[in-house]
Amino acid sequence: MISVDEALQRILGGAKPLGPEQISLADALGRTLAADVAARRTQPPAAMSAMDGYAVRGADVAKLPATLTRVGSVPAGKNYPHALKPGECVRIFTGAPLPEGADTVVIQEDTEVSGDRVTMKDAKPGRHVRKAGIDFREGDVVLRAGRVLTPRDVGLAAAANAPWLSVARKPRVAILPTGDEVVMPGEPVGPNQIVSSNGPALAAFVRACGGEPLLLGVAPDEAHALQTMVAAARGVDLLVTTGGASVGEHDLVRDALGAEGMTLDFWKIAMRPGKPLIFGRLGAVPVLGLPGNPVSTIVCAAIFLRPLLDALLGAVRPLEETKPTAKLAQPLAANDQRQDYIRATLARDAAGALTVAPYPVQDSSMVSVLARADALIVRKPGATAAPAGELVEILPLGNGALGI
Amino acid sequence: MISVDEALQRILGGAKPLGPEQISLADALGRTLAADVAARRTQPPAAMSAMDGYAVRGADVAKLPATLTRVGSVPAGKNYPHALKPGECVRIFTGAPLPEGADTVVIQEDTEVSGDRVTMKDAKPGRHVRKAGIDFREGDVVLRAGRVLTPRDVGLAAAANAPWLSVARKPRVAILPTGDEVVMPGEPVGPNQIVSSNGPALAAFVRACGGEPLLLGVAPDEAHALQTMVAAARGVDLLVTTGGASVGEHDLVRDALGAEGMTLDFWKIAMRPGKPLIFGRLGAVPVLGLPGNPVSTIVCAAIFLRPLLDALLGAVRPLEETKPTAKLAQPLAANDQRQDYIRATLARDAAGALTVAPYPVQDSSMVSVLARADALIVRKPGATAAPAGELVEILPLGNGALGI
Repeated sequence: MISVDEALQRILGGAKPLGPEQISLADALGRTLAADVAARRTQPPAAMSAMDGYAVRGADVAKLPATLTRVGSVPAGKNYPHALKPGECVRIFTGAPLPEGADTVVIQEDTEVSGDRVTMKDAKPGRHVRKAGIDFREGDVVLRAGRVLTPRDVGLAAAANAPWLSVARKPRVAILPTGDEVVMPGEPVGPNQIVSSNGPALAAFVRACGGEPLLLGVAPDEAHALQTMVAAARGVDLLVTTGGASVGEHDLVRDALGAEGMTLDFWKIAMRPGKPLIFGRLGAVPVLGLPGNPVSTIVCAAIFLRPLLDALLGAVRPLEETKPTAKLAQPLAANDQRQDYIRATLARDAAGALTVAPYPVQDSSMVSVLARADALIVRKPGATAAPAGELVEILPLGNGALGI
Repeated sequence: MISVDEALQRILGGAKPLGPEQISLADALGRTLAADVAARRTQPPAAMSAMDGYAVRGADVAKLPATLTRVGSVPAGKNYPHALKPGECVRIFTGAPLPEGADTVVIQEDTEVSGDRVTMKDAKPGRHVRKAGIDFREGDVVLRAGRVLTPRDVGLAAAANAPWLSVARKPRVAILPTGDEVVMPGEPVGPNQIVSSNGPALAAFVRACGGEPLLLGVAPDEAHALQTMVAAARGVDLLVTTGGASVGEHDLVRDALGAEGMTLDFWKIAMRPGKPLIFGRLGAVPVLGLPGNPVSTIVCAAIFLRPLLDALLGAVRPLEETKPTAKLAQPLAANDQRQDYIRATLARDAAGALTVAPYPVQDSSMVSVLARADALIVRKPGATAAPAGELVEILPLGNGALGI
């Protein structure tokens, strides 16, 4: 048996980002930048008013109250065409450029207007002005390669005047569940068969991680048919199989992949749920063989497939590199030599601290428990018994929009 | 001025879920269930082996070691066609149904095989068997209406044999940024103009929240053109405008909407960034007018637009209803009478607790700071000065896959 960390290291060892593609900013949500985005302009390009009010020369409002002459008005998008002379002010609106000579804005609530005479009652030289370039300057890198783009990032790229972006190609992931006992939802189900949850769940998982799934269909436990389906996966960026990887006699997946010329490793990994894993290469295509139990499949996908997809995307997720923790809501027994991933729910205690409660039943066939779980508790091999209240490492599963 | 809570209450007051549509399970990721999903089958349908090994009668292994006669083999997806007699065992694989009469599985590691004689060295009556229905039973509601579907939920719906799902229609949201000073990225930019970040950012925001954006284009500050563009929004589920809602003279949006027959409220909201907000109805279409500053726009979208989209979707996000907190990394001054949303970064201290550090500059025009922020610190009106280490409410912005 090898450890989770060693398996992950071997899987990620040969993974390199796929090539870039150029896409419209309008399609950029959730895509991973393949190149830095440098600002094509300075923002704001000139000193601008941060409020609705009057642009003045700071020296003119050093002593208050000060009455100045209104000589014009400048809305956002327009410009006052003259330099402001001493004693003059200009009506100005939020986002409008300051006239030459002006360096201060007096907000309208602090003024009294009588014809073209405006009395400034409260002001401070230099106030309510956004200096040129306070947001960014032309040439500044505003977004780095590897960033998975949020709506706010899309806004920043837009403000930097980038209508097209270079992003990582979506990894095309062929998915091949196996087993005579497995049928797709809605198809006729025999008395000893189960409905495939692995195929649809993995396809959705790959999509949520930024990949493009190709569900090849369910492969039967028959060497020739399986081999034909495996061969159809050539040309994709990754092949993921489920099932057929146990220590029993029905390890057809390994044989079929071997017959297709795959160089392969078969590992027993010291983890629960999980354990059997196939990893290798079919020509240029990396192959990840996940266990067949639906819970093991998705837990192994979260542990191994997601980082592999991130590596193919070149995605950098800085916040997620810190390992989150939560307080145990109830004690946990000592762990054996396998790394445990315990399905659990999250809540908050009266003090606002995050708490985590393991489900009493952890059977790796129970997809209902997995779907309801908010997180996995990560228990290292040989971990001693943990009392309620202890901080434990968790892997949040994310019930939000497109969380995993 | 009205409070954030009061504004939210008024905005959500009239919002009802849009009608449902029926979609394939393959397209269900991130969609919101419009109806409960009831299991169409019992899972597992019969007692099944949880391991690779031998199916036996519990009474035959009450005393160990026990040597039994192997009378057959049953892989997953097949069935042993006879009842197991005393003294008999059957080779069985994970996921295969137990033969009639068998109630126990002995794992292969605990056996010794000699021809058709199998000696059981370690066993416990009833072990390694998954009872019928331990995951769910036919008719059980496995997923509730309002659930935003994760990959694991897709797997559960598949296991429950649901190839089609009833989900909320995606709200179609027309987006109309306004202002002569605003141009789209890549278009010619005049010396006093800025590039629109609000349009692309809001479109991505709506998509991340499960809606379908329609970017109408940037409306100029000219009554007739604006009115024509507003009229084009009829028939959508929601119209969102940005800009043109200040207290100055350029409030063309309100006038144009009014001319098109909109019943409207104009509110000053006691919040920062934000403040001016328009809300009303253009015929049957609710209209949300957000401020024009890019940071105010997205913060107001997070506070008001996201819950409104959730209401149109009928989405229930139970975990997010609890208000997360983090420890202040540095002190905060007392707050005035406006609710403050302070851009901040998240980290973890040595003890693993979440900490939050406000950015020193909070100017509402700085999209670079907003993009880099991990969270907003929520400061209630009149909040007293908070020392470093105090727990404060945060609104995480989520830099993950499709986070906001």
